[in-house]
Amino acid sequence: MVAHIAVDIGGTHLRAGLFHQDSIHPLRLEQISTQYQDATPLDRLVSLITSIWPENDEVAAIAVAAPGPLNPYEGIIYTTPNIPGWVDLHLSEHLENEFNVPVLLGNDANLAALAEWKYGAGCGHHHLIYLTVSTGIGGGVIVDDRLLLGAHGMAAELGHTTIIPNGPMCGCGQPGHLEALASGTAIANWVEMEIASGTHSVLAGQTNLSAKVIAETAAMGDDLARTAFLRAGKFLGIGIVSFLHIFNPSIVIIGGGVSKSGDLLMSPVRKAVDEGIMSSQFQKGLTITHPEFGDQAGLIGALALTRS
Amino acid sequence: MVAHIAVDIGGTHLRAGLFHQDSIHPLRLEQISTQYQDATPLDRLVSLITSIWPENDEVAAIAVAAPGPLNPYEGIIYTTPNIPGWVDLHLSEHLENEFNVPVLLGNDANLAALAEWKYGAGCGHHHLIYLTVSTGIGGGVIVDDRLLLGAHGMAAELGHTTIIPNGPMCGCGQPGHLEALASGTAIANWVEMEIASGTHSVLAGQTNLSAKVIAETAAMGDDLARTAFLRAGKFLGIGIVSFLHIFNPSIVIIGGGVSKSGDLLMSPVRKAVDEGIMSSQFQKGLTITHPEFGDQAGLIGALALTRS
Repeated sequence: MVAHIAVDIGGTHLRAGLFHQDSIHPLRLEQISTQYQDATPLDRLVSLITSIWPENDEVAAIAVAAPGPLNPYEGIIYTTPNIPGWVDLHLSEHLENEFNVPVLLGNDANLAALAEWKYGAGCGHHHLIYLTVSTGIGGGVIVDDRLLLGAHGMAAELGHTTIIPNGPMCGCGQPGHLEALASGTAIANWVEMEIASGTHSVLAGQTNLSAKVIAETAAMGDDLARTAFLRAGKFLGIGIVSFLHIFNPSIVIIGGGVSKSGDLLMSPVRKAVDEGIMSSQFQKGLTITHPEFGDQAGLIGALALTRS
Repeated sequence: MVAHIAVDIGGTHLRAGLFHQDSIHPLRLEQISTQYQDATPLDRLVSLITSIWPENDEVAAIAVAAPGPLNPYEGIIYTTPNIPGWVDLHLSEHLENEFNVPVLLGNDANLAALAEWKYGAGCGHHHLIYLTVSTGIGGGVIVDDRLLLGAHGMAAELGHTTIIPNGPMCGCGQPGHLEALASGTAIANWVEMEIASGTHSVLAGQTNLSAKVIAETAAMGDDLARTAFLRAGKFLGIGIVSFLHIFNPSIVIIGGGVSKSGDLLMSPVRKAVDEGIMSSQFQKGLTITHPEFGDQAGLIGALALTRS
């Protein structure tokens, strides 16, 4: 039988799965830490793929999901967060030489969108927006049943849409992006700033605040924590309204760690969308929902890429 | 020979052209006022098409460019500015029954993008953004050599991207959209507001200010008029940065009446793009330019649609 290998690269873990044609359930699934002792992350990646290589089946292709800026057309990783040395890495070429099969590369948020469209919450939709809200905000867009990549494969950076010119600084160095207003990091930063300026909260004095802790505190009724999610949700909703006007999708899928706070984030999102939409035509048949795949999204997306 | 008929609908004029295969130069071109005496605009449209119908050639298709919200998949015009009575008009069906050829319908800004991509400034580009800056701001996007339409054909409303939440009110009834900050109307409104609040300008006391008059006044050195274009250009640039992050196109084409002010608008646009882009990768090989087609864009776009 023909098999596909899907790989998900992260700063802490490398994960690889072996899949038979048509199934999304791996025959083999291995996960190792990205960095360990003397072997380079690239050597460890090759070992990982070798460890799940099938004995009898033919491998049609390998696809790799990776974070950070990369060129999916040429299979080049420009940089990867937390993996030192991966700069302008010709990953596809390297793996093709190693394994003699075609190797495809994609941005993990893009591939999560592809996973949801092909096998998950977005099945049957032709125009889809996927947002992952965690420490940052990543995006993936399906237009006309195809992944939006753009001229150099850098498209769908939805987290880097300007929401407030001169707003809080984004991790990318530019002000007022959606990511700087509605990501987990943004939520924690805002709460810390409010506490520093004297706003009362049971979170005062806690260090290393996270969106998860703030969500738990909000659930217990803390006003500042609740306001932090109301604010983030409102800005996320304002961003989504623009994306609806720009893409007119039939589904918006919101995933990532921060989205697990549920209605705390999603209620203000829905309110901002209802209030901000320029015409109800954009909401006709529109679904706003959560993803089907959690931390498997990158891997399933890479699988989808091998079959695209 | 096979011929195509392209039609451009406006509130004041209806224009139709007859084209032979492969040529963008019309064999016949007629323009009439949309409303005149007792005939309805729809009757006048049918007469106009009849007047350019070829005697010997076969017509392969008719395509119609129209402003305002419409459904290109079903050929329905929801409403059209300045044409009373055109509400939920099944235009394609009506014209198909009349002429017995396929009839295609498109939003005029979308079709202007298609015109520039197929025959104009965007030839050879696969990912293109077109903006028309006039009384409003319209948009058209080519993704992967295809027009971005979305689930219901309402996509690419780039003028209705939120730039400043709670900013000035847009014509659509929502606050802070790009159109409310950088269109000709927005420029005139802002100048009027500044004059009303006491800012000195030679424009003080003038009624019915237009972006054209303000541009001429700016060219003569009037500070307020210059600032109005600096401000509009900056906001347009901020919007374009978001569109670059979202679509990663290789070309951005800026047309419409206000863009004829040239560097007055374009210098601050380019500055805002240079300053706001999150990575120079998005500017690699990027062209920001003016369109090849002026007020023929809708007609040529409709022609492109008949050949798509």
